[in-house]
Amino acid sequence: MSQTTADDEFGLRPGEVAVPLPAQTDAGLYFIGRIRTPWKARKECPKNAREARESGVVCTIEVDPRWAQALKGVETCSHLIVLYWMDRARRDLVIQRPGHYDTGRATFSLRSPVRPNPVALSVVRLVRVDGTRLEVIGLDCLDDTPQLDIKPYFASTDAIPEATVGWHAETKR
Amino acid sequence: MSQTTADDEFGLRPGEVAVPLPAQTDAGLYFIGRIRTPWKARKECPKNAREARESGVVCTIEVDPRWAQALKGVETCSHLIVLYWMDRARRDLVIQRPGHYDTGRATFSLRSPVRPNPVALSVVRLVRVDGTRLEVIGLDCLDDTPQLDIKPYFASTDAIPEATVGWHAETKR
Repeated sequence: MSQTTADDEFGLRPGEVAVPLPAQTDAGLYFIGRIRTPWKARKECPKNAREARESGVVCTIEVDPRWAQALKGVETCSHLIVLYWMDRARRDLVIQRPGHYDTGRATFSLRSPVRPNPVALSVVRLVRVDGTRLEVIGLDCLDDTPQLDIKPYFASTDAIPEATVGWHAETKR
Repeated sequence: MSQTTADDEFGLRPGEVAVPLPAQTDAGLYFIGRIRTPWKARKECPKNAREARESGVVCTIEVDPRWAQALKGVETCSHLIVLYWMDRARRDLVIQRPGHYDTGRATFSLRSPVRPNPVALSVVRLVRVDGTRLEVIGLDCLDDTPQLDIKPYFASTDAIPEATVGWHAETKR
């Protein structure tokens, strides 16, 4: 485990903490498609999912033709959960300091792509399905991001309007 | 691709369709902990996330001590998104027929564990954090299920109470 007070040889920012990763992975993922967005560099991406949704920018999920039949009925969903792979994120930080925070935050209390398994999750609004291409609103990732899964969003179990994130509410006061 | 009209040598039910899986996986996952539930066999598990939540059964997520520091602040969240790995599910079905359906359904229109990447997602209510043990309500998986990620649930982006799943609403009429 290493903790730093200044940017160091491991690329850590002040306050960030890294741990050694396990010697090997335990399971494998297939990339089932690619996400097409207008954003080619991180600084161009929306800051978060809310900004992405409010921007109204339509992104396209291009599913590999292998999985075409698995999409039947998806067009009847108003919203989907999209899982994708943040392939450029480091995986060993337990405390991290995203650019817009002034202090280190614990990985599992954040939605940052930096986590042991960089599986990102977005709830998106489905605009249109054209064969294996899904047009959606609400993604904030880089162009060409590998896609892992599509799930129907069920309000009955997935929508918790009263949910709160205490530490985040504190930072807004 | 294979389609069947009766249970066949590949273990397919009538109407199910399998496709060949890619020759190799594209990325690796670390199991970061284990989920402890009272359910040792599939038939004992709650039928879905709603039933799990309404049952009020408390399950425990045991996070590997390696990631202990990554949990700081998680205790301030009322709800979490938990990602876990359905390690006993087959990955090659594009049309499947879960036991309680009378027809084949497309994989990406279902929340079934059977999918190319069997990453399950549950929104849970956090009851208590005790070191690296998280007590939660809302999981419906087998005991000893490998855990992949914990994310804070943000109502501002994750809660869409008006979302609808057309095909599912049809089946209830």
